[in-house]
Amino acid sequence: MKALKDRIIADGVAIGTEIVKVDSFLNHQIDVALLDEIGQEFAKRFQGIEVSKILTVEASGIAIACTTAKYFGNIPVLFAKKASPNTMTEGFYSAKVKSFTKGTVSDVRVSKKFLVPGDRVLILDDFLAHGEAAFGMAELVRQANAELVGIGAVIEKQFQGGGKRLREKGFLVESLAVIESIQDGKINFLT
Amino acid sequence: MKALKDRIIADGVAIGTEIVKVDSFLNHQIDVALLDEIGQEFAKRFQGIEVSKILTVEASGIAIACTTAKYFGNIPVLFAKKASPNTMTEGFYSAKVKSFTKGTVSDVRVSKKFLVPGDRVLILDDFLAHGEAAFGMAELVRQANAELVGIGAVIEKQFQGGGKRLREKGFLVESLAVIESIQDGKINFLT
Repeated sequence: MKALKDRIIADGVAIGTEIVKVDSFLNHQIDVALLDEIGQEFAKRFQGIEVSKILTVEASGIAIACTTAKYFGNIPVLFAKKASPNTMTEGFYSAKVKSFTKGTVSDVRVSKKFLVPGDRVLILDDFLAHGEAAFGMAELVRQANAELVGIGAVIEKQFQGGGKRLREKGFLVESLAVIESIQDGKINFLT
Repeated sequence: MKALKDRIIADGVAIGTEIVKVDSFLNHQIDVALLDEIGQEFAKRFQGIEVSKILTVEASGIAIACTTAKYFGNIPVLFAKKASPNTMTEGFYSAKVKSFTKGTVSDVRVSKKFLVPGDRVLILDDFLAHGEAAFGMAELVRQANAELVGIGAVIEKQFQGGGKRLREKGFLVESLAVIESIQDGKINFLT
């Protein structure tokens, strides 16, 4: 997706060889016009696939999921929660997700009421790095006996291997910008 | 906002005298069509007020802020973060926010880069209860020497006093559904 790559080059900040910060337009401050283009692009990438629900994880995935849902005919969005608030008192599915960026392991949870057999689930997130969040969400879908029909990431950091692992498991993975490497402050995309 | 009140009556779950769960359509599973109506309604309520940026706090406010931003001409959304991820290494503004629901106090932070003097900020959130989140965000706006032009909540729990405190401080507050009381599983709206 050219507009996205151009924006990453213009406003993304490369740190070391592993991190690219996109907090000026994607996951702290959000450019909603770009977000809309991202939603349209996901709809194009997963065209022809029946999707009944979009699953993401708080917080950065929410805006992406909601904008994309419009282009799938306003299907519901479900966002997994990272902690267990007091108000989530009923049954939930749960999976562990390690964050390499934050150095933490969290429980991601969704209420059993909102992920059910028969659901055809598209997982969306901002980054696909080591794949931990996607595997965690896939586990929630498995527990619910729902069907995982695809996984979409706005930015895939190919060199961290998550996309490869997911594709090897047979999942359909679409990433709108794929970064091959980060070197000397430069972000190199897979062409 | 009638469609919202109707939905709260149909699908909201009253717990005790203080909590109303709207996790089936607003803050866990999200109905994006209703969300779009919410965005349009906020634009109507704050019509004629110049807004340059929408500020919210993760996670439940993000979808609301992004959808509303479209109806303000695609202005940027900024969502305050509740913890300090390793990637937020540069300067930030910070305020304490107590959550009565979760029984916790968190730090909410925004990068200094994205909230600046001259910004005309509209604060949006899902709930306005005791007003802690709104006062925390107002404090971030104050630290940035930006201008707070309005505060919008999807659901105000009037009996918890946050709206009153904010209005007494001179802030313009608009709530799309105002709950007067919750009794015996019944949600009573202010007419």
